[in-house]
Amino acid sequence: MDEHARISRFFAPLTAGEPGSYQLSDDAAVLLPPETPFVITTDSVIEGTHVMLKATATQIAQKLVRRNLSDLAAMGAKPWRYTLNIHTPPRTPESWFAEFVRALGEEQRKAGMVLVGGDTTSGGTLVHTTLTCFGLVKSTGLRRNGARVGDDIYVSGTIGDGALGLPLLLGHLEASPEATAFLTDRYHLPQPRLTLGQNLCGLATAALDCSDGLLQDVHRLCEAAGLGARLNRDAVPLSPAARSLMETDGFWTTVLTGGDDYELIFTAAPAAAPQLRELSLRLQLPITKIGVVEEGKEVVVTDGGEADVTPVNAGWEYS
Amino acid sequence: MDEHARISRFFAPLTAGEPGSYQLSDDAAVLLPPETPFVITTDSVIEGTHVMLKATATQIAQKLVRRNLSDLAAMGAKPWRYTLNIHTPPRTPESWFAEFVRALGEEQRKAGMVLVGGDTTSGGTLVHTTLTCFGLVKSTGLRRNGARVGDDIYVSGTIGDGALGLPLLLGHLEASPEATAFLTDRYHLPQPRLTLGQNLCGLATAALDCSDGLLQDVHRLCEAAGLGARLNRDAVPLSPAARSLMETDGFWTTVLTGGDDYELIFTAAPAAAPQLRELSLRLQLPITKIGVVEEGKEVVVTDGGEADVTPVNAGWEYS
Repeated sequence: MDEHARISRFFAPLTAGEPGSYQLSDDAAVLLPPETPFVITTDSVIEGTHVMLKATATQIAQKLVRRNLSDLAAMGAKPWRYTLNIHTPPRTPESWFAEFVRALGEEQRKAGMVLVGGDTTSGGTLVHTTLTCFGLVKSTGLRRNGARVGDDIYVSGTIGDGALGLPLLLGHLEASPEATAFLTDRYHLPQPRLTLGQNLCGLATAALDCSDGLLQDVHRLCEAAGLGARLNRDAVPLSPAARSLMETDGFWTTVLTGGDDYELIFTAAPAAAPQLRELSLRLQLPITKIGVVEEGKEVVVTDGGEADVTPVNAGWEYS
Repeated sequence: MDEHARISRFFAPLTAGEPGSYQLSDDAAVLLPPETPFVITTDSVIEGTHVMLKATATQIAQKLVRRNLSDLAAMGAKPWRYTLNIHTPPRTPESWFAEFVRALGEEQRKAGMVLVGGDTTSGGTLVHTTLTCFGLVKSTGLRRNGARVGDDIYVSGTIGDGALGLPLLLGHLEASPEATAFLTDRYHLPQPRLTLGQNLCGLATAALDCSDGLLQDVHRLCEAAGLGARLNRDAVPLSPAARSLMETDGFWTTVLTGGDDYELIFTAAPAAAPQLRELSLRLQLPITKIGVVEEGKEVVVTDGGEADVTPVNAGWEYS
């Protein structure tokens, strides 16, 4: 099956009637300009880097879409259109593509966006995928750099689950079957906080998604405003599954510096607290204050009292 | 140097003041909607597939931009904005990035577009790059599917140079030093026909860029309209360098089915011929009639007389 046959069989149905996609049969897509500003984000998912080696087609599609949607969420945007680049090893079977587009189709339906273009190539030994996602925002959405001294720092959901899920998958850590199932699922299936992001426009002063580790990402949020932060480790929201591993060596370092949470970190004025409580109830999503923005350049973590428990190596990067 | 330092040092300057890029420091870019429809195209360039193994950073940047611009050219679009995904082997030196962005900067300046977002990752052993390019078009630009029976089929520039350049680079073919220099340069440095594409809006009935081989791409153009074509091999425009290799075994198969020309193939009514001659003169770019659109489904190549000289294996795909 050549590239063009594969595109028309597997990928063209994902254009779902968007006329400007030309069913992926032209050199490019032509979109009518939206009425609002639009957001562009792009992220790759590479086997062995962002997903496990030998990840299933479904796992790759899910992580690919959700990593990108998480960036749209952090901008307060609503998903709109996307393009896909996919590079697969030679002789990747058709069943792999069938599974991949089935999962991609599920993801795009949930997000409410459609495919408008892309590129397929084959070679190498690892699946390498890139999504470029377009979202729509009212005004300019959420920015990363608006934190002010005295703002509260919040996170959505629970922190550290994905970072604990990875060593469980690799067999470097043990937990109960229930905790293992929950945490590895959180690693495979990030939940982009799109509705929260859209509702934070005008309410949060700054936001970003937590993908590279809580401390590194809080540091980025503060750095963008030329400020620092004080976090209360005891306030960091943990899932029951994560909590069951609290006695493990290096637990807090993993939770505070591991990646793959894909929750939103945001700042808001103290006066916004009642609205945020109400929003949390309405979305049935925990929103937890974990600290405050301060003068300075450091992100200091305390144990709730005065003790400084900031991990030595607080940063974390894909490498 | 971590990912963020690399982005701000090397890539942020390529945003060239576009405010919505946020200097690549936010989760995504936010663009104001353009006043016209906009074109989206995306293509990857992978070391060993679209460029030689051990291609220089400059060669990768040039091919990456030009492959994408060639698709914009085929839509009659004017380059506007782009995003970049770049995946490099661990320990790729800073000098490599410096060279890559220098070349990318040259290319974007010539094209008149700026960087608004992207993604850098490291891993593997081969450089893997993706550009997603946005262009602006009047009305809906050029389409691939508008060819009509009796239309003339044209190509810009000369055909087969890139396809002859590759075996010269690989040492599978020999030519004079001058011919070798010209043809390998044509392989490395495609010339996207942007101005021609923009001028063909309203004049051509259909267009696409010739990247996968003349016959395959003419076949696509005709197939999109449910038609066939008759081409005159003697009319296919050859460079003097290509002509010097005419006695080589398999010459015509390489010229007619090899890829990497990145010229425009287009159709136009016979009545458009005088305007096209004038356009060719104004752009100082050969525009050559190579055949006609016919009823049917086949692309037949003749030797100028009645003899059918269609190569047996006329299609060509990246694999």
